[in-house]
Amino acid sequence: MVYDADGREEETDIVFLSEFVEPEDVMFMRRNGGGLICTTVTDQLAEKMGLPFLVDVFKAAGSEYPILKNSLPSSLPYDTKSAFSLTINHRKCYTGITDNDRAMTISEFGKLMKELDSGQSQASAMDSFTTSFRIPGHLFLLRTSRDILKDRFGHTELSTALCIMAELTPSATICEMMGDDGNALSRNMAREFARARGLQFLEGKEIVEVWKEWCE
Amino acid sequence: MVYDADGREEETDIVFLSEFVEPEDVMFMRRNGGGLICTTVTDQLAEKMGLPFLVDVFKAAGSEYPILKNSLPSSLPYDTKSAFSLTINHRKCYTGITDNDRAMTISEFGKLMKELDSGQSQASAMDSFTTSFRIPGHLFLLRTSRDILKDRFGHTELSTALCIMAELTPSATICEMMGDDGNALSRNMAREFARARGLQFLEGKEIVEVWKEWCE
Repeated sequence: MVYDADGREEETDIVFLSEFVEPEDVMFMRRNGGGLICTTVTDQLAEKMGLPFLVDVFKAAGSEYPILKNSLPSSLPYDTKSAFSLTINHRKCYTGITDNDRAMTISEFGKLMKELDSGQSQASAMDSFTTSFRIPGHLFLLRTSRDILKDRFGHTELSTALCIMAELTPSATICEMMGDDGNALSRNMAREFARARGLQFLEGKEIVEVWKEWCE
Repeated sequence: MVYDADGREEETDIVFLSEFVEPEDVMFMRRNGGGLICTTVTDQLAEKMGLPFLVDVFKAAGSEYPILKNSLPSSLPYDTKSAFSLTINHRKCYTGITDNDRAMTISEFGKLMKELDSGQSQASAMDSFTTSFRIPGHLFLLRTSRDILKDRFGHTELSTALCIMAELTPSATICEMMGDDGNALSRNMAREFARARGLQFLEGKEIVEVWKEWCE
């Protein structure tokens, strides 16, 4: 579990390695998290597939649909840029929303990231994506900023940095933890949840610190 | 609660009237549903605001981002067209995902639909939307087919038809109910959930039947 930072979202996300996500992990996230279940992709692999940020899609379609241009955020209250990319379903999904379907979409996306990360060519990367996934779907993709944890310190970057430092496939699946009071689960309650279940609880600043050392 | 139909999604959705959604209703949906929390808009009001289907946005941006063209579904396993429109946050949201934030986005969207439905001009409709909401966000909008319950019989159309027949603002907020076994909650278990809590449980065919009479 990863808490970002005081003064940012102040939210704790549950974090899984995408490649190995099972239906019970999706159930765990929706029951104990309650936010959106999202899967990260590095800027580098997104670039390889030609996978855009949603904001850039809306800009490209803005002349045809003016509402898109006019609804773009001039700024987010907690960061400079939204990490949202496309929403996807694996093509073998039925509705796309059941735990079985979402686990298939997530784990198959993770496996594709593993292949691409090990050197698949740019030309075939997009084909591999479009052969396996359709849009729009029920799983949100989140694209990291170009230089991870340099200018953006969101859960997208923090969770992906953990995967990279552990030398695992660089795609995490994350879900925000909600409280009983209408707000995000407080840091202390999230920490207590982790302790009670023997899970790791990390703060963003701890990850950023080791990431800087790791990058040197 | 509304079950669509045997042979279609075979899912039961929790249904609220958008306009009056409170944070505890969002909590109810994420805890007892577990799917995506989505808000419907009629084709007519979407047209008034210039609010497109996501599929059409992807087509418009497809020359700039070829991955979009190539990932569009040639067909869905359960219907002819995805109802997904934009994802939105109210501009006063902080992260957009907490129960408080989602309830604000949903209820304010419902109130806007009430205004537009009572005759606001087309020119100001888009302005009203873009002044209040930003994209991309954490709440999915679902746009009905043009003739409700004529050629598409999804939860989007079924729940919106209920609002219209009850002479309420035509925007429902819905969430699919998941089971413990990786699949959608079975119809029988959904019916039992409704009975135990004194909630109404309707099947799509019952709604379609009264809708046909109502339209005459």
